[in-house]
Amino acid sequence: MKIICTRQNLIQGVSTSQRAVSTKNPLPILSGILLTATNNQLELKGTDLEMGIQCIIPCTVQEEGSIVLPAKYLGEIVRRLPDTPIQIETQEGVNVVIRYGQSEITINGFSAEEFPGFPNPQGKNSIIIAEEDLKEHLRQILFATSPDENRPVFTGVLLEAAEGTIKLVATDTHRLALKEINASSELQETNVIIPGKTLNELARVIGAADKNVTISIGDNQIIFGMEDTLFISRLIDGQFPNYRQVVPQGYKTRIRLKTKELLEAVERASLLARVGTQIIRLSIEEEKIIITANTEVGRIHEEVAVYLQGDTMQIAFNALYLIDALRAIGSDDIYLDLSGPLSPGILRPVEGDDYLSLVLPVRTI
Amino acid sequence: MKIICTRQNLIQGVSTSQRAVSTKNPLPILSGILLTATNNQLELKGTDLEMGIQCIIPCTVQEEGSIVLPAKYLGEIVRRLPDTPIQIETQEGVNVVIRYGQSEITINGFSAEEFPGFPNPQGKNSIIIAEEDLKEHLRQILFATSPDENRPVFTGVLLEAAEGTIKLVATDTHRLALKEINASSELQETNVIIPGKTLNELARVIGAADKNVTISIGDNQIIFGMEDTLFISRLIDGQFPNYRQVVPQGYKTRIRLKTKELLEAVERASLLARVGTQIIRLSIEEEKIIITANTEVGRIHEEVAVYLQGDTMQIAFNALYLIDALRAIGSDDIYLDLSGPLSPGILRPVEGDDYLSLVLPVRTI
Repeated sequence: MKIICTRQNLIQGVSTSQRAVSTKNPLPILSGILLTATNNQLELKGTDLEMGIQCIIPCTVQEEGSIVLPAKYLGEIVRRLPDTPIQIETQEGVNVVIRYGQSEITINGFSAEEFPGFPNPQGKNSIIIAEEDLKEHLRQILFATSPDENRPVFTGVLLEAAEGTIKLVATDTHRLALKEINASSELQETNVIIPGKTLNELARVIGAADKNVTISIGDNQIIFGMEDTLFISRLIDGQFPNYRQVVPQGYKTRIRLKTKELLEAVERASLLARVGTQIIRLSIEEEKIIITANTEVGRIHEEVAVYLQGDTMQIAFNALYLIDALRAIGSDDIYLDLSGPLSPGILRPVEGDDYLSLVLPVRTI
Repeated sequence: MKIICTRQNLIQGVSTSQRAVSTKNPLPILSGILLTATNNQLELKGTDLEMGIQCIIPCTVQEEGSIVLPAKYLGEIVRRLPDTPIQIETQEGVNVVIRYGQSEITINGFSAEEFPGFPNPQGKNSIIIAEEDLKEHLRQILFATSPDENRPVFTGVLLEAAEGTIKLVATDTHRLALKEINASSELQETNVIIPGKTLNELARVIGAADKNVTISIGDNQIIFGMEDTLFISRLIDGQFPNYRQVVPQGYKTRIRLKTKELLEAVERASLLARVGTQIIRLSIEEEKIIITANTEVGRIHEEVAVYLQGDTMQIAFNALYLIDALRAIGSDDIYLDLSGPLSPGILRPVEGDDYLSLVLPVRTI
């Protein structure tokens, strides 16, 4: 393999494909990125066997071929290269020489044949969605996934497609976020759980204006296709909880308020509540909501103006869950719907009914 | 105590005085900031008994008095307060109520009488220096101090005043930095060691254009006086090593080069050298310097153009020490002077002879 490419393209390709490389993986070959030069382009692939990312960057191919290079070093090196044309050439054995200006770096790699086969992208059911939109949807959903690998279903996001709409749902059993998206009519009925990790990495690379992501769903894999980049991920096996049962129909108390005002008040309350269990109490009155927390450090009494429909109510929440939900909602004005001190609180944007998030209350005596 | 002040002033006062508060201090009272309201100003004091910072902010005093509040909570709270007038009032006992808009926070404090006495600022020998200049001098010197508290002298910076000039010197025994400053003639002969920690904190708060720092040196303390802020620090006892003996007179090899080119080359070499001992080899030739490193990850060969005076030479350095020195030098073009593979390398700006830094070589076989 012998190629010449620009620093900028190389950085882009390496840093994107590197996102699939796990630093914890015990297999040395999986700490590497597979570089393959053909047809005047360089293909870079990284995988942790659960997720794979393939990137294509333009380059001048002087000699076709392929090699696996350690992702960590390659990433750090290319980011520090000068802005000159960069030549990469494989040497005898499994070394590669990176030449720039008068200087060169030789790094030890692995044989391309050792690299695990990449799942063949296959998926019949396709959804096309704008990168910007998908990024925002993911931001609104991903905070509600669980980090606990022992219960895989909760680490993922449910994608449910039916009757022209797609629903994205995440829950860690303490809170839940649900987003509804209008989709093209060709869509078949689908019900899959996508690993949160894949979506977190995806959210970091998408967002370009006027570009689309094509989502293709296969039997046990999902593919996100961008202009020069492909994310392939396994799906999570298991039964996602029936979220419809969890979301209360109707409410006894509805308050309308400014997201920012409640968020800042809860953030302050959280500072004091933190030495304890992050429990804050909400007392909903006629024209205001009173937020209190009381710990050994001190106590806080915050008032936020609200419009109340229905009953006054007292309820307690974990401040951190409320903060996450308020940051994710992406709307200046929201409704908080309550049905009782032991029923979940539902946050909805005032504009649009395509999103909600649910937070379980804390039982207090 | 009962005062009203702005959020911005309060943030400034708390975050500055908080710099002297150690989170590791076992004495609870020292985790606090002493607030004293008199004469329509609020004085904030923090100390770890080695260093003390006093800040004065304007406020409306409705009732004079003082209290000690936990620095950590106070700092986090004031940064999150809304931008409205803030009232702070002491309550029965040692509590304080912070009121803003319709909301309030009560935090538990300590009695002001428990707060340790602040050293009385006293110092006969005064130096006035522009904040911007002092900040830059400190940047050029502080990297060479040692973090090792077992050898206090090396954690400090020597301030030596004699014959109208001030010298600042720091060394951790592996490298040394020396800055010479022209001073006013009134200066008495002085030789003190200032804790690096004090200077690091000082460097973070100074830098305003058109403002001065007044440095006063007492028998066992030093005072840095800014507009509304006073840093008082003990001095370090002990004998600073004789730096004059360490700096070689003359050189066998002098190269002139672009700081940025050498820095970037050494940074790349450091990436590879890091798995080993950070040793990089410099081979100085007629028109270039060749930097090499060789580890199990791979090897690097970097070339940087130089103007050579004197002999060609081979020498090895710890890459991290060279990087620190090159980042600190603050000059586009530098000289690197060498006297042999076992003698220190001296870096000097091409313009001006008021600064040098010295790096010991690594002995290699």
